[in-house]
Amino acid sequence: MLTKIHNFSAGPGILPAEVMKKASEACINFKNSGLSLLEISHRSKDYVEVMDEARSIIKQLLELGNDYEVLYLGGGASLQFGMVPYNLLSDSGYAAYVNTGTWASKAIQEAQKIGRVSVIASSEDKNFSYIPKKYTIPSDADYLHITSNNTIYGTQIKEFPKSNIPVVCDMSSDIFSRKVDANQFALIYAGAQKNMGPAGVTLVVIRKDMVGRTTRKKLSMLDYAVHIKGESMYNTPPVFPVYVVLETLKWLQANGGIAWIEKMNNAKAELLYNEIDTNPLFYGTAAKEDRSYMNVCFLLHKPELETIFEKTTKEAGISGIKGHRSVGGYRASIYNAMPIESVKVLTEIMKEFAIKHG
Amino acid sequence: MLTKIHNFSAGPGILPAEVMKKASEACINFKNSGLSLLEISHRSKDYVEVMDEARSIIKQLLELGNDYEVLYLGGGASLQFGMVPYNLLSDSGYAAYVNTGTWASKAIQEAQKIGRVSVIASSEDKNFSYIPKKYTIPSDADYLHITSNNTIYGTQIKEFPKSNIPVVCDMSSDIFSRKVDANQFALIYAGAQKNMGPAGVTLVVIRKDMVGRTTRKKLSMLDYAVHIKGESMYNTPPVFPVYVVLETLKWLQANGGIAWIEKMNNAKAELLYNEIDTNPLFYGTAAKEDRSYMNVCFLLHKPELETIFEKTTKEAGISGIKGHRSVGGYRASIYNAMPIESVKVLTEIMKEFAIKHG
Repeated sequence: MLTKIHNFSAGPGILPAEVMKKASEACINFKNSGLSLLEISHRSKDYVEVMDEARSIIKQLLELGNDYEVLYLGGGASLQFGMVPYNLLSDSGYAAYVNTGTWASKAIQEAQKIGRVSVIASSEDKNFSYIPKKYTIPSDADYLHITSNNTIYGTQIKEFPKSNIPVVCDMSSDIFSRKVDANQFALIYAGAQKNMGPAGVTLVVIRKDMVGRTTRKKLSMLDYAVHIKGESMYNTPPVFPVYVVLETLKWLQANGGIAWIEKMNNAKAELLYNEIDTNPLFYGTAAKEDRSYMNVCFLLHKPELETIFEKTTKEAGISGIKGHRSVGGYRASIYNAMPIESVKVLTEIMKEFAIKHG
Repeated sequence: MLTKIHNFSAGPGILPAEVMKKASEACINFKNSGLSLLEISHRSKDYVEVMDEARSIIKQLLELGNDYEVLYLGGGASLQFGMVPYNLLSDSGYAAYVNTGTWASKAIQEAQKIGRVSVIASSEDKNFSYIPKKYTIPSDADYLHITSNNTIYGTQIKEFPKSNIPVVCDMSSDIFSRKVDANQFALIYAGAQKNMGPAGVTLVVIRKDMVGRTTRKKLSMLDYAVHIKGESMYNTPPVFPVYVVLETLKWLQANGGIAWIEKMNNAKAELLYNEIDTNPLFYGTAAKEDRSYMNVCFLLHKPELETIFEKTTKEAGISGIKGHRSVGGYRASIYNAMPIESVKVLTEIMKEFAIKHG
């Protein structure tokens, strides 16, 4: 008998058990067609329905109107680091970026290969442990780029900046985890492998007026206009990952949508942060007001206890809580599909650990 | 009880039943870890093993040495249409392309966005129904680009051109279907969704001396050097599709490898072409010497019989044989995983159809 595994992996991360069951079934017999989802044409009626539904559910969940387009693209969010400036950064203009960690830094580096970039705010001075605020957004920049949640440093934007220029947001690690007014963004992108589905597909939500902003000669696969025209099927899409995204979002919707999951996510995060703040052995690494409700980073006051803490958590079936090397210690990723019961297993262990080793 | 479906789809196409069973199981419990393959970290030991094995099995099957690198990338072969010239086509040089159909034409269009292109041969004059031969390969071009098999027009290169310049080959639709000396190519790319696995991942095999050929400032995700350095995990790879590719290639290897599958593929293609050539109702569209052994294109002499032929094949469980609109009629794709029994079902129907309607 296997120990139940509590999957705190930072991404690819936990997905709902019932979604994985559906994915498993679709590998054998998709929609009772007698064919596997892995071998059907993406132009078949059964699959076109999946893609259409996968695009429309995004608009429902984000409450977006017809001024937005929804795309599912291959290549990962890392490809979007390049595609965003390739499509939006003009030859004579510049783009404003806020640097809140590893992924924002990569987005900046890629944009610099395309054109001029101004880093208007950064939290690099304190190892990205907080979210910069009160910066001035230049009114003449082509767009502002921000990262809503930083998996590695465990910080999250709680209040989005008011901006008169288009705002592009990398929401890879917290999309669909909380109520956000999506209409304030010109473009949102998110790798699927946290709250949405498996690795291999990236969501792009783009306001239509963002298309055709630059005259640069574009490779078709890097041109949002081409993918919009192709209804996200300009080329063969990542068929299976898109299906799993749809099933994950249907699970979210059926259970009460974003209002429901936000309540759950708050309860999980508060439970864990409360334990960190009251337990004498541990401390959090991110500024309290900027703490991520998706990735909870914490350290032991006494690093000599690390080996035994890791042994204890492992024995309890806790998986994937080792922190990123840039921060060290522990990172518990508590994405949408993580049940509060798993967080309780972790907090109970922390409590017992304090009694034994405090 | 479902009728058995005979999947002649042009791609995504048929995969071995036992591979789909393994994929289905991995969605629930991967390598007995208690976790689904869809929710595990790509940096976990269990998955790094998959990627390593998936890279090494390519070298075994293609008999390649250490002068080649193997990459699994997102974005599809269509992204390679751009990445190839982006990495290999110099600012002052030009690239030579052979135009054998829709996909080659797209590759040419994308290359023209990067630099100078010379189309040195084309079969467009006869609706791409043959493979151009006896063209002269310019010795000063940066590379020659060819397409080994043309899904839409049902043609296939039987003898690869001798070239003194690096040869890049799009093998999306016939890789691993027949014995080919892979060492003659500088770069091979192939979307997975025909003989290798599901949609969502593309194989790139690149000879190391092809890296760093151009000084152009490159987006990281479009730079082969970056992916080589990252051992095909510069960013989160398409985890599940790569796993299914590995299982498909292990199936191929366990059954006798390329020598075995080539024999099978020859038998299937000869059976079907023989029926087309002897049946009074049908005729093939491709030049006989250039006929594809993967995609068999044929038409009815009397188009008025189409409706009834389609009804007859559908009732027999035959799926996906409608021809592409560029050619019309029928296209039976008989990829590696297609059993000869399914081809026999089709040829029997054609025989009976001739008796009834001939």
